[in-house]
Amino acid sequence: MDTPHLLIDDARMRRNIEKMAAIAERNGVALRPHVKTHKIPRIARRQVEAGAAGITVAKVSEAEVMADAGLEDIFIAYPLVTDPKIRRAVDLGQKLQKLIVGVDSLEGARRLSAAAGNQVMEVRLEVDTGLRRTGVAYDEAVDLAREIDAFDNLNLSGIYTYRGAVLGGSPTLDREKAGLEEGGLMVTLADRMREGGVGIRDISLGSTPTAEYAAAVEGVTEVRPGTYVFYDRMQARLGACSLEECAATVVCTVVSRPREDLAIIDGGSKTFATDVPPGTAPLNLEGFGHVVGYPGATLERLTEEHGMLAVTAEHDLEVGDTLRIIPNHVCSTVNLHDAVYLVGESGAVEEVRVAARGKVR
Amino acid sequence: MDTPHLLIDDARMRRNIEKMAAIAERNGVALRPHVKTHKIPRIARRQVEAGAAGITVAKVSEAEVMADAGLEDIFIAYPLVTDPKIRRAVDLGQKLQKLIVGVDSLEGARRLSAAAGNQVMEVRLEVDTGLRRTGVAYDEAVDLAREIDAFDNLNLSGIYTYRGAVLGGSPTLDREKAGLEEGGLMVTLADRMREGGVGIRDISLGSTPTAEYAAAVEGVTEVRPGTYVFYDRMQARLGACSLEECAATVVCTVVSRPREDLAIIDGGSKTFATDVPPGTAPLNLEGFGHVVGYPGATLERLTEEHGMLAVTAEHDLEVGDTLRIIPNHVCSTVNLHDAVYLVGESGAVEEVRVAARGKVR
Repeated sequence: MDTPHLLIDDARMRRNIEKMAAIAERNGVALRPHVKTHKIPRIARRQVEAGAAGITVAKVSEAEVMADAGLEDIFIAYPLVTDPKIRRAVDLGQKLQKLIVGVDSLEGARRLSAAAGNQVMEVRLEVDTGLRRTGVAYDEAVDLAREIDAFDNLNLSGIYTYRGAVLGGSPTLDREKAGLEEGGLMVTLADRMREGGVGIRDISLGSTPTAEYAAAVEGVTEVRPGTYVFYDRMQARLGACSLEECAATVVCTVVSRPREDLAIIDGGSKTFATDVPPGTAPLNLEGFGHVVGYPGATLERLTEEHGMLAVTAEHDLEVGDTLRIIPNHVCSTVNLHDAVYLVGESGAVEEVRVAARGKVR
Repeated sequence: MDTPHLLIDDARMRRNIEKMAAIAERNGVALRPHVKTHKIPRIARRQVEAGAAGITVAKVSEAEVMADAGLEDIFIAYPLVTDPKIRRAVDLGQKLQKLIVGVDSLEGARRLSAAAGNQVMEVRLEVDTGLRRTGVAYDEAVDLAREIDAFDNLNLSGIYTYRGAVLGGSPTLDREKAGLEEGGLMVTLADRMREGGVGIRDISLGSTPTAEYAAAVEGVTEVRPGTYVFYDRMQARLGACSLEECAATVVCTVVSRPREDLAIIDGGSKTFATDVPPGTAPLNLEGFGHVVGYPGATLERLTEEHGMLAVTAEHDLEVGDTLRIIPNHVCSTVNLHDAVYLVGESGAVEEVRVAARGKVR
């Protein structure tokens, strides 16, 4: 198997899938994993077989790939705005057992309602609980829920948020506090909506780092972690897993060893994601990945096809040596690869296409 | 045309191709554009039709895609080390009019020679002139050139380097000084090799920011810019182009406008490359792209599928509005897209597959 390639340890992945399923079961909440991490229908099916109620996607195109592969219960956790996406979602709603669509503005709700015609679309209202991205402002959510609830062909069944390990607007290492606060905010909000006459059933939240805490909050009905399927260096730093639980590594070759303090590998920014850059607080990760077996080596710089590994004279790295590197952020790293390579306990390797890779629309 | 998508202004691209071809012609050097920027055979052919002597790639798989599309003169400017890549390169050498392979170590040369058998492979020695990635150390280059020259089935025809806008080991805005120094270093080195009995014909260097200066150095024979075909915000900041010459923009939709100071677009780190992050010296770019027509708006944060645009109450952005954004780094941005959309002067749009996207091996 030539390098670079993205290797998935099948046994580790299975354990990760089971671990999160057990967390959800123990807390009596539904698990709806975000499949943007792996983008592979076969892995989504495994998550469902292990107990997930359905799956989450960000794009209609991801939903289409998963629906084609037989996934029947899909939540597009993204506000749909453009006509082509809304039309495709309406079509998909007719095919699937269950489709839920995110909405976070009156304009989005209007467009969805207009396209749905006689079909009733199940929607959830996205709420911003502190990440400052999509989601209606927390204080305006009750009013907007009431307005969306008034559309005859939109069935507002729940509210959802995504915040990750964020507290008071800033990233935090305190996953427990973040998860509990996130859960509390959403349960309180749902209660206010119910008092205002809007029947909210589902309260969906949680990320890989916060899921186990958010799931324990009374009233929460669903968690949507994604990264846990593989975990990554960022999650290990957050304490959500150990490095030994990370199932995905990028396998690279040393192509040059021009100096005592420098080894060059055949993976750069087209192989490793750069969206969780070194030094970002509060993670403060050194370099672009963890070099397995060489803890003192730092993947210091990346250009497109080169990785610059700061090493010492003591590192016995030579041209042709193979290295395995746990990426900082596995979700965006997977999206750079056409295929992953599943390695089983026997050592047999199987190529699996990342079927929803690059599905930007 | 739904969003997000990567739009290429055909007329601008043509002018960029002609501009660099004229620079090379004026200076009497060969132009061998690096096609990693666009990864599209049709655009590579246009570059050749406009006067390029051949093309440059980083990966054997890129070379294979280009060869399949009829490109006949290819330089793999990357040290090949693994057996599968070397075997594929040897096969390719039998099919193409001309194939040149990079080498930067004795071990790499040995492996290539062993695989080549009776076939003579044309190679160029990569030299590090200050970027500190692949390339033999400058002071060791003459000795290594002599050793490589001794292989009967390797024809060492030239030396090459890639440094970009770097001076004294650090990034610089002084493209002229960087290009002249790079050229001077390589010409001096080639002279030393010739004095040492190694017949060096080709001296190949230069990047989009330095090509026009490096090409003017007496003795330089070839430049290998890549980004110029589209240009990008980084190149504009370096002074290599104006923003008006940038041919590639990411077209996005505002999907949420939750606050006066925040608009969310449907492109994140799976749509925009993050390998030239905001604030990196000496570019110090604000945000992840230039928002065309909204100079005061900053694409401040990206998550995977969301772009957070810092705006003011005065920005008349509403849910559903379309924006065009010049990416910081177009090469790694193109690699995130399965297709680009070429728009001609008539306004007609054509989808063109990025055939060598994701070719990591």
